[in-house]
Parts: sequence; C-alpha cells; structure tokens
Amino acid sequence: MRVAIIGSGCSRFGELWEKGFREIYLEAGLKAIEDAGIEGKEINALYVGNMSAGMFLGQEHVAALIADYAGLAELNIPAVRVEAADASGAVAFREAYLAIKSGLFDVVVAAGVEKVTDVSDQSKIVSSAADQEWECFFGANLASLYALIAKIHMKKFGGGEEDLALIAVKNHKNAVNNPIAHYRREISVEDVLSSPYVAEPLKVLDSAPISDGAAALVLASEEFARRVCDDPVFVEACCQASDYLALQSREDLTSMKAVVKASRKAYKRAGIDSKDVDVAELHDVFTIAEIIQYEDLGFCKKGEGYKLIREGITCLNGDIPVNTSGGLKACGHAAGASGIRQIAEIVDQLRGKAGKRQVDAEIGLSLSVGGTGATAVVTVLRR
Amino acid sequence: MRVAIIGSGCSRFGELWEKGFREIYLEAGLKAIEDAGIEGKEINALYVGNMSAGMFLGQEHVAALIADYAGLAELNIPAVRVEAADASGAVAFREAYLAIKSGLFDVVVAAGVEKVTDVSDQSKIVSSAADQEWECFFGANLASLYALIAKIHMKKFGGGEEDLALIAVKNHKNAVNNPIAHYRREISVEDVLSSPYVAEPLKVLDSAPISDGAAALVLASEEFARRVCDDPVFVEACCQASDYLALQSREDLTSMKAVVKASRKAYKRAGIDSKDVDVAELHDVFTIAEIIQYEDLGFCKKGEGYKLIREGITCLNGDIPVNTSGGLKACGHAAGASGIRQIAEIVDQLRGKAGKRQVDAEIGLSLSVGGTGATAVVTVLRR
Repeated sequence: MRVAIIGSGCSRFGELWEKGFREIYLEAGLKAIEDAGIEGKEINALYVGNMSAGMFLGQEHVAALIADYAGLAELNIPAVRVEAADASGAVAFREAYLAIKSGLFDVVVAAGVEKVTDVSDQSKIVSSAADQEWECFFGANLASLYALIAKIHMKKFGGGEEDLALIAVKNHKNAVNNPIAHYRREISVEDVLSSPYVAEPLKVLDSAPISDGAAALVLASEEFARRVCDDPVFVEACCQASDYLALQSREDLTSMKAVVKASRKAYKRAGIDSKDVDVAELHDVFTIAEIIQYEDLGFCKKGEGYKLIREGITCLNGDIPVNTSGGLKACGHAAGASGIRQIAEIVDQLRGKAGKRQVDAEIGLSLSVGGTGATAVVTVLRR
Repeated sequence: MRVAIIGSGCSRFGELWEKGFREIYLEAGLKAIEDAGIEGKEINALYVGNMSAGMFLGQEHVAALIADYAGLAELNIPAVRVEAADASGAVAFREAYLAIKSGLFDVVVAAGVEKVTDVSDQSKIVSSAADQEWECFFGANLASLYALIAKIHMKKFGGGEEDLALIAVKNHKNAVNNPIAHYRREISVEDVLSSPYVAEPLKVLDSAPISDGAAALVLASEEFARRVCDDPVFVEACCQASDYLALQSREDLTSMKAVVKASRKAYKRAGIDSKDVDVAELHDVFTIAEIIQYEDLGFCKKGEGYKLIREGITCLNGDIPVNTSGGLKACGHAAGASGIRQIAEIVDQLRGKAGKRQVDAEIGLSLSVGGTGATAVVTVLRR
C-alpha cells in the first residue's frame, strides 16, 4: 500500500517569545489540516516528534497535551510522542507512515514541536543527544563531538574552514526566500571565518541555532489521498538506521554509518539511485555534517564532499540543490520539529509551492540525524 | 496478519542502586531474547518505552543508547523511543505491533525501562505526566489529582477508604509469589488505613512506589512465530485512546473516557466481550484507579467497582483475577517499563509460566494509563 502526504504546515522558526509550546504546535497543525482540506474529525491518529519537553519545560506526556490543545482529545484518537534526539520529527513521520502501512489507519498527522527559549541551559539539554555517561560526563558536548569529527575529516580529505563556511553561506542565501526561516539574511565567507570558535574548527556561524518551531504533515492512504487531493506527494521509502551512540565505539568518524545504511535501504525500496534525487534537505546541524552527508548519501565519492560545495553543485541552481529551505543553519533547528519541517520543504518543492526557492524536482530526499549520527532517517518522496 | 509474542523478560523491580539505566535494560532484554530462542541478529527493530530519562538522567536519545548497549548497533536496526508518561511501555508495544502489521518487519523487540533512584525530586518528575501549565503550576501533582478523582468517585458511589485498602492488600498478597516484585510482603487493611495521607483520601499504602525496572517482549509475525515457538501468545488487539490532559476539561472525573474507548475498540477488534477476559493487569498507580478501571473496562456496572474487591471477584481465586503480578502497587511501578511488564505477566499467565500466581486463563487483558488518564492502551492476548 502506498502512503501519501496531502497537507503540510509550519510555524515560523526562531525565538518565539510570545508563544508557548502548545500554541506553536497549533499554528503548524492548523495550517497542515487546512492545506489538506480535511476536517479534524477525519484524523485517525497523531504522532508528535519532540526531543526534550521534559528538560525544556518539565512536561512529558506531550502527545496527549498536543491532541488536547488541538481539539483532538474529543475524538479520543491515539496520540504518540516519539523521541530520537534531533531526529525525533523524522522518526515520528516514520511511525505515522508505518501506522498507515499497517492498514489500521487512513489519515494520520505527523508533527514535530520544540520550545527551547524558556530556559538558559539549552546547549546542555541539546547535548543529551550524546552519551551522558561515556561522553558528556567527561566534558564533551554536541559541538565538541562534531568538532572532533570535522578535524578528522579535514585531516583525511583536505578540506578547510573556508569550505565549511561555504555551506553556511549557501544555506543563509536560500533562507532569505523562506518566510518561516529563523535567519533571513545573507552572510559572507568572511562573516563565518571571523565569527568566534564554538569548538575549533567549528565557529558560531558553522552552527545551527537552537530554535523554537513546529511543523505538521497530513499522511493518508493512497485511496484516501486520491479522493481529496489533486497533488499528493508519495512516500516511496522511509528508512531508519542506528549506530553506536558514543563516538568511541565507531570504526570511522569520517562517515555516519546509520546514514549510509538508511539511505541504501531507502534507495532500494524506492527503486532509485542517489543520482535520481533532484532536491534534498540534509541535517546541517554543523556545517561539517552537510559535507559528510553528501558523501554518505552517495551524492559524491567519500572525501569529495568539499567539491560539491566548492563547485556550486548543491546551490539552488546546481545539479542537486541541498537545503533550499535554508537548512537547519538558517531556516532554524527546532530539534523535534526539524525532521518534519525538512520533509515539508521537500513536499513544497515537489508540489511547486516553494516560491522563489523553487527548483525543478520530481524526486526529493530528506535526511534527519539524531545527535552525532546514532539515528538516521531517510525519506524519499515523489510527486 | 496476526502478531505473536514469542518471548518475555523482566528485570527485578525496585530500588536498583547497583545498576545503571543501560544495565537494567540489558537484564530484561537478554532474558526476552533467550526466552524467544532467537539470536540478536534476527531482530529487525527495537522500540523502547521510557517516560523521562531526560529529567531522571539528563539523557535523551535513549533508544539509540539501548540499541548500542544491547549489541544491536552493529546491526544498524531502527531504534525508536516512545513516550506517553507511565503508559510509555504499552505505547511502545503498540508501535512494535503496528510495525509488524505493516509487513515491513518480522521480529521486533518492545521494551520499557526507567531508572528513577538517581535523583531526589522523583514525585515532581512523575507529575510531568499532568498538565504543567494548567495543573501543576497551580500546585497540583499526580497524587492530588488522583485524590480529587477518589473523592468524587467515593461521594457519588459510596465507597470508603477501607475499600481502597482492599486493593492494596490484594495486590501485595499476589506479589509475594512474584520473584521480580518490588514489595514481596503482605500488608493488612489496618496497615493501609494507618499509613499517612499523601493526599487525602489517598495514603502512602494506596500509592504505587516509584521503581527502577525494565521489561522486554519479542514480537513476531505469525509465520515466524510458528516456526520458532511452541507456545506463542497472539495479540488479538492493541488499541490506544486519548483524553483531555487536564482534569478541568473532562466531563466526568469518575470515569476515564480513554479507557472506555480503547477497551471497546479492543473488544470489538478481538471479537470478545468484557466477560471473556480471564485475567487482567490494570494500572493501579493509586488504589482508586483500579476500582475505576473495573468499571470502565466493563467488568461491572459504573459505581459497582467496590463490590468486585469486597466480594473477592478480582482476587487470585476469583472470577477475574486482577493484578496477579502484584500490580503497580506491589510489583512496582517503573514508569516507562510498567506497560511492558504488565503484558509480560499476562504472557506468563497464558503460557502457564506464572508459578504460584498461576490462574486458568485463555484470554488476558492489559491496561496501561498515562498520568490521570489522557492516554490509555488496552491489549488483548490469547494463547
């Protein structure tokens, strides 16, 4: 049975001081339902990706909370919260996809939401994606772990800090035309290189912001989708893989094995090759991650990721535009919401609704990664 | 397609000072795999129910952590953490069930784990199951919310504190014969009535403990199950429902609507009636909850729950033995693990492996509730 996406909606990403957790979701959820042209009572189940409402807000049981505030409690539908660090949204999407595949549900909403600006120790909470006992206890955090990865990758394959800067420059440029983006302004290579180090060689402008935000998608069985929607986008594959949580256990830090495994499974299931991908949203939580993901997804050979950005191949007018939304770097990274937001961008591209960011695409890919790569989800969509 | 359970395993429940989060899981996981007689490499996916490793341990991304420590990272299988307060384990089970139903997986492990004794503010963290902005901000916690429910139920239907005490007495008696139980000792009605109030009319001995613990189940497609297992237990239905999170929004506090809805869907899907249930594990987080659940599950009419315990109908030798394990009250309540542990007890009963707790049963039911009832999951099993 094929599964389709029939509606999408995102809140603005950024520092949403004026809104609480539930209000942020509501904005995205209502847009998605309206976009799908369905009524709330047609929804059979709700999946919510959220990384850490516990530590950010002292609130667990968040899917029930969202169902309640969205007016779905009256319907008593199942509401499930899914967590896999900053891949939570993508994993929630995959559970919604499996729920429809099971044949038990026709219409399922997959959403992601994160409210982070209410607390001060955000970077500590974000580092809960890494192994607390084996990494963070010894002083590591997410930035220092990615810095280690960047160092090794640069040493082995000859990339430089200027190459990383090009990723941030490209993504900021794309975000200018994205109305929901956290940062809608261009930056220069010089801006990136002169920004302070977070963990050398990674600088402030190599790092995605920690944003508030929400996104929602309406998934449906093909039969339902054909009935209500003129331009459904089909989920050709949604595959997830895991890897060792702590870097110390991995064979090779220059590659994310979960990304390799999830993408190869997804290509096989979708019956495509990496060359068939027309547009992609990748997980540029730090600039180095996007470079490594080019390689691990097979967009180029291992070690040649730098070439793709140097030669403009992943720019908006290149062969494989990557992060047309602005990516996590400039559209913003609202941990549990990002995976859904990424898929929503691909949906917009495939439906021709991406405005000034529009590229020509029939097949799109979204990759979400949890922490330093212990979780990866690859979704392949086709219009 | 039918889904079967082919193996189960639980750690001891209690204050496990000598073990960390990952070690507790490992004990349960290895037992379940051994019980199923399969090898680790046959596992296609892992689901982990966990309520709040974030607040208890500062650790998110817990399914990846568990997959890693259990030796499954090498296989790169999908590892998904699911959260719905103290129904987390049951919701993880349901996602594992749907994953097999989708036809994409043959063998899936559903586990639950919670490590709570490393921190001091446990009852605050447990109350994150309730609405932080609309309930806890004003001073309510889980105990006071259940006390409110108890007061209203007792006033309307004429139960007394002695009736509630009988639930605790029964469950402690059952736990004596459960080797994994947190409290393996009998208590008397007098013990309960003389214990201090937590939130009047609920006393310390009306309340389930906050335990460490883990439990794991191996689920498989019927075809796989028939090949490797002599006594599979079949999942006839696993249905989930939600309700308003905050009590203020609910029409009637003497009934949990999510329990009513989930159970009626489950009975229908399993093709049974409440009278067909031979043994049940209910969510006695406070004694009043078990009484209300008798009624909401249709084991008796509304308001007659007290009669079932007064007349011994739910005792080990009664018509519908409830909480043969000792329930959350005496077996222990390890939030995210309890839903799996409850199903494991029913599996033991249906396979004739419950030792001195054994009852005669062909059909069993497990009910898990999140917080004060915004989530309910009802699972119907048949041998």
